[in-house]
Amino acid sequence: MDRWFSVSGLATGLIRPGDAIADRLIAAAPRPGGLVDGDCIVVAESAVATAEGRLVRLDGVKPTPVAHDLARRYTMDPRIVEIILQESDAVIGGMPGLLLCRAHGTLLPNAGVDASNAPPGCVVLLPANPGASAAGIRDAIRASAGVEVAVIVADSRPYPMRSGCAGIALGCAGMAAIRHGRAVADCIASTAELVMGEADEGIPAAIVRWWKP
Amino acid sequence: MDRWFSVSGLATGLIRPGDAIADRLIAAAPRPGGLVDGDCIVVAESAVATAEGRLVRLDGVKPTPVAHDLARRYTMDPRIVEIILQESDAVIGGMPGLLLCRAHGTLLPNAGVDASNAPPGCVVLLPANPGASAAGIRDAIRASAGVEVAVIVADSRPYPMRSGCAGIALGCAGMAAIRHGRAVADCIASTAELVMGEADEGIPAAIVRWWKP
Repeated sequence: MDRWFSVSGLATGLIRPGDAIADRLIAAAPRPGGLVDGDCIVVAESAVATAEGRLVRLDGVKPTPVAHDLARRYTMDPRIVEIILQESDAVIGGMPGLLLCRAHGTLLPNAGVDASNAPPGCVVLLPANPGASAAGIRDAIRASAGVEVAVIVADSRPYPMRSGCAGIALGCAGMAAIRHGRAVADCIASTAELVMGEADEGIPAAIVRWWKP
Repeated sequence: MDRWFSVSGLATGLIRPGDAIADRLIAAAPRPGGLVDGDCIVVAESAVATAEGRLVRLDGVKPTPVAHDLARRYTMDPRIVEIILQESDAVIGGMPGLLLCRAHGTLLPNAGVDASNAPPGCVVLLPANPGASAAGIRDAIRASAGVEVAVIVADSRPYPMRSGCAGIALGCAGMAAIRHGRAVADCIASTAELVMGEADEGIPAAIVRWWKP
């Protein structure tokens, strides 16, 4: 079985603000052995952002007239629209419940502002610097478990003119994101999508093991 | 190690027009055991299209004035541009060596017309009906090897506003392409990208094993 690589979900349970995400990943790694050198760990951006405290309480948000107008047009909560506007470089279009934005250097529904994976009355923003988040998790895993892993902070995104969401890498550490024209980090993020669940399933991460670049 | 799934490349060697691709996949499957029930087999569209004889010889192509004009503007072979125009619903833009087209229901560089994976003096078109190709390969594997597999015909595509190519499914058989809003077939195609090579490496396919939807 050489040339095979393997993939498994990491059931950390729910991640809460302030949680040490590296320790949760180490504790969730399959036994015996736990994490090993060369593992690539994929973590959902919503888990990373929650641990980093990137929650916004809606009751403190005052929508502008522009936010009220877009909220009316697209049947959305004006407070959420206001946060989306603050996170966006531009709003390109919309449909009921969704604004298509240019934000964080890409096309991004709702500018990454997520109500579905947040506590009641809150939304989660994207991690402020996903590359730095990935590097921080990688360093913390090295310090706690003594292993060298690669880390990807991943998101689930729609592809223009297609149905459904696939994975993309928002940031990575310990690996090349692109190799020979291949979006390797995006491909690994999509691989992890196949075993990761929504936040309430408590599987916000995955291991990709024995994959050789 | 339950909850793990595994992925491996299938080294069929070079695929030529008229090859029985199902038999090549069966012969390339890892021994002992070969293909087993529940395997998902991903095959590159270039291999499928080549086996189906979707080659066009350039020396028989007469470019129109529109093709000559686009070829001059984007530094391309006017005969290849002519074929791209025939395969496209619309040309949306271009850059040197590449036309961005609307074709086959999506955004598609060069309308899927591929010179890099074709014999000298030829280009390969996309499979005419990738879903039917996937179903045909699935049926042929069942008939020859007696196993029930899922089959995805996959392509490698750039994602707008990002670098590098990831996998997408052009067609699939024996599985759902979308599940709970997740583009499962696209995610599996990206997973396979991590072990598949360019045509000249002779690894145009992959097995995804033990993955549970």
